[in-house]
Parts: sequence; structure tokens; C-alpha cells
Amino acid sequence: MPVSPLTDLSRLCLHTITTKPWSIEEATDRYAAAGVKGVTVWRQWLEGREPVRVGQAIRAAGMEVVSLCRGGFFPATDAAARQTAIDDNRRAIDEAAALGAPLIVLVCGASPEQSLDESRRQIADGIAAVADHAQASGVRLAVEPLHPMYADLRSAINTLGQANDLCDALDLPSVGVAVDVYHLWWDPNLEAEIARCGQAGRLWAYHVCDWRSPTEDLLNDRGLMGEGCIPLRQIRAWVESTGFDGPIEVEIFSNRYWAMDQDEFLGKIVQAYKEHV
Amino acid sequence: MPVSPLTDLSRLCLHTITTKPWSIEEATDRYAAAGVKGVTVWRQWLEGREPVRVGQAIRAAGMEVVSLCRGGFFPATDAAARQTAIDDNRRAIDEAAALGAPLIVLVCGASPEQSLDESRRQIADGIAAVADHAQASGVRLAVEPLHPMYADLRSAINTLGQANDLCDALDLPSVGVAVDVYHLWWDPNLEAEIARCGQAGRLWAYHVCDWRSPTEDLLNDRGLMGEGCIPLRQIRAWVESTGFDGPIEVEIFSNRYWAMDQDEFLGKIVQAYKEHV
Repeated sequence: MPVSPLTDLSRLCLHTITTKPWSIEEATDRYAAAGVKGVTVWRQWLEGREPVRVGQAIRAAGMEVVSLCRGGFFPATDAAARQTAIDDNRRAIDEAAALGAPLIVLVCGASPEQSLDESRRQIADGIAAVADHAQASGVRLAVEPLHPMYADLRSAINTLGQANDLCDALDLPSVGVAVDVYHLWWDPNLEAEIARCGQAGRLWAYHVCDWRSPTEDLLNDRGLMGEGCIPLRQIRAWVESTGFDGPIEVEIFSNRYWAMDQDEFLGKIVQAYKEHV
Repeated sequence: MPVSPLTDLSRLCLHTITTKPWSIEEATDRYAAAGVKGVTVWRQWLEGREPVRVGQAIRAAGMEVVSLCRGGFFPATDAAARQTAIDDNRRAIDEAAALGAPLIVLVCGASPEQSLDESRRQIADGIAAVADHAQASGVRLAVEPLHPMYADLRSAINTLGQANDLCDALDLPSVGVAVDVYHLWWDPNLEAEIARCGQAGRLWAYHVCDWRSPTEDLLNDRGLMGEGCIPLRQIRAWVESTGFDGPIEVEIFSNRYWAMDQDEFLGKIVQAYKEHV
């Protein structure tokens, strides 16, 4: 079933890292002025601020806090480092609660010094160790499967199938999934795994950008929606057929866009959102 | 079951692109002098040469021609370009036959201008269009699934599961699979899909290198075996448990290694092969 273009901005959310040169105060002002309705706050943007005041300011500007990005990074070869990660995730949960963010995105972590199987076990253990605190704090945790090119350093959870398997195994009400098209677009099982994710009631976030050809940097060459090959309308149709009608989050890491005037970039995002998402 | 280190070079094969600065004549001399036993010839190394003479020279130096690399690149948005690709694959089959290469590695192709589903259909059609010619020429075709980071431009076949599905669907005696650790190491289904590949009698090639952390270039920053996080002994154990005892092919694209003295690099390859593969 085809999906209609988005004609208004009621579901548009931006990740603060998308406009990296802007502080949280600048981002709040400019996003609101452009008609953006939601903000996913990256933790670095909270440095030196009171999360509760940042959340108040975002809501006072007419937007909602969609999520806090990011928790995770659980695997490590020594137990002390794993405990440090768990402690840091507890702090992230506290920050999210203060900010009024109902969700934390988990970039689960990986270590090239140990097997993927071991990292995957440590991810499950790490999430289990913080899930009760999340639940008690009214914060949910969304496992974001990352592209396989990040399996060495950033996440050992690399397909939506794996994220679903992990959630099934954990079976915790505070743990679900974030779907990001950049990481998952290539997967021949994507439609089926989105449906599975929806049936389990755990598709809690949807992130968009695009895949440029050629991609020149493994981290910071994401494309604006419409300038790459990701079938954005197709994937949104699959996501919405699960009943998801939440925010659509624009998360772009791009040296080229960070180098341009950010107001101009924000204008391009709004236009691309309407034309291509 | 653990796998033993390789104590001799009887299975060591090099891809000519691994030592890119060397011509086919230099590569033949130096490989043979180092004790290498097999050569996978990239088509560019045949330019201006008679394939039959190149094959004779490799065998005269005491080595075998393991495969010709590479065919494929079937998808394109227009039919004329797809026919051009099919014609080129027929020529590659002729070159392989003249060279005495029993196998062609297929990098199947992709196009960011059309859907992955469409590219996947065109790949199946393209292989089917040349398989009889391969069969009649005594040449086999090995589908090499490529890492998902190449799904836009190089191959829409991105997991071993997909390659197995494709081979099942084609059901052609001249079509099998090449397993390259660089593309597949992250896949949680790898062990099962290697076993499936073996059961179908289609695991025809095994390529090694390593994944560096951080990887700095999407194409040309492959690591020497042992300097990355790929579990080489584990994957070789899975491959050999299918009964595979063929050549182990070193295929490294690396700006940093191409810039160094190639004899020194070849020495490092031999050492790394014994210590880490």
C-alpha cells in the first residue's frame, strides 16, 4: 500500500547532532521557528545544563522531547569497564527522566578485542542490569541495530532480526527497538522484521536520513533524505503498517552539512522531509 | 572443534590486486619465489596479454590459477547496459577458460537508481544468461556476497543467506559461492549459512584478510590477517567442517600496503598466513 507524502510538520523531530554547530539553546530556538515539533537530545548537549530546565525550555517552545541519545556501549573486556558502562546508563536514565524524555536510544556497543558472541551476551546483561531502573523512572530503552560496518566498535547488534531476538530473550516491558533506515535499508528481511517488531509492540522510534553513493566516510557522510538510494516511502509504509504514528526523527551526521549555514540546512531538511520521507 | 594453524603454504593463494603495484609477470615471479601456490588473476592484469600465456607462465612457475576475478555487475536501469554486462561476462568466461581458471568470482552488482529487489532480479537473470556458456567452457561461477556497505554500488547480494537463496533459486550446476571473511564476519547466521553452503556442495572459494578498527576507507583499508577483529580460525573451522580443503585466498585492498615495498608486504602476508589464518 503506498504511503502519502507528509504535508505538515506535526511528526518532524530533529536530533541535536544533526545541527551539530548549534548549542541546545540555539537548536531549541531555530527548530521551533522552523516548525519542528520534536527534539531528540544528545547527551553532549546537556553538558553544563540542568536536564530539567532543558526539557522545560523545549516544551515551552512548543516542542516535545522525543528521546535522549544515547545509552548503551555495554561490552568491554574487563568487568570494571562493564560496570562503569552500567553506571553511566543509570545516569542517562536519570537525565532522561529529568529531561522528560520517554525513551533512550541504545547504541549497544562492541569490542574488537572479543568475539561478537561475547559482546552480544554482555549487551543482554547490561540492558537487563538497567531495565528495572528505567521502568521505575518511566523511561523506555530502544535497542538501535547498527549497520554491520559498525560491528567492530559501535554495536554487535547489526540487524533488526537480532534486535528482535534480543528483545524476545530479555522479555522486559521497558525494552524495545529504534528503526533507523541508514542501518537497515539493505536487509532483505527488513519488511518481515519490521512487521515482527510491530506485532511485539516494540517499534518505538523511527530515524531517517539517506545513503549517498559513493559514501566517502564511514561515520559522517550521511545524506539528506532524497539524495541517496534508501527507499524512504517504502520503509515508512512498512513502519506505519504496524500502527506506528510517532515522530519521524531526522538524524544526519555529515561533515558537509555541518560545514554549511545551519539555518539554510534546516530549511533543506524541512523541504526534504516533505518531498522524500 | 579447533582448527590447526597452517604450517605450510600448500593452500596459499594470492589475488593479484593484493600486490597492486606488480604486473602479472612480477607477481608470478615473486609469488613463486615466496612459496605461494595459487594465483587469482584480476582481469585488469590481463590487459595487453594473452590469457593462455599468462596461465602457462603461472603453471610453469609451479602455481595454479585459482580463479579469475571478477565477473558480475549485472544490474542496470536500462536493458542495453544489462546486455553489455552479459556480453562482458561471456568474455570473462572465455578469458577464464584460456587462462585455465576453473572459477570466476562474481561481484554481482547493484544500482542506487533502482530498488534492491529489482537489482536482485537482474542479477539472477544475468547469471542465468551466462551459466550455460560457463558450463560449456568448463568454468564455474562463484557468487560472492558483499558487505552491506556495498549494497548501493557493488552488490545487492549482501549475506551468505542471500547467496544461498539465489543459488537455490537458480539451481544451476555451474553456479556456487565464494566466502570472503571481510564481507561476512559480522553475520550472526554465518555458521549456519556456511554449513548450508557446504551441504549444497557449492562452497567453492574462501577469501581472507582482516577488519581494521577503525576502518578509515570503505574500499581500500582492509587489514592483514591478525591485525583486525575477524575470527579467522573460527570461520576457517566452519568452512573446513563442510569438507572444503581448497585454496585460501588472500585478498587485501589497502592503500597503506600498496604504498610499501611489495616484497616486504609479501613476507608479512606469508607470516600472517601461518600465524593467524
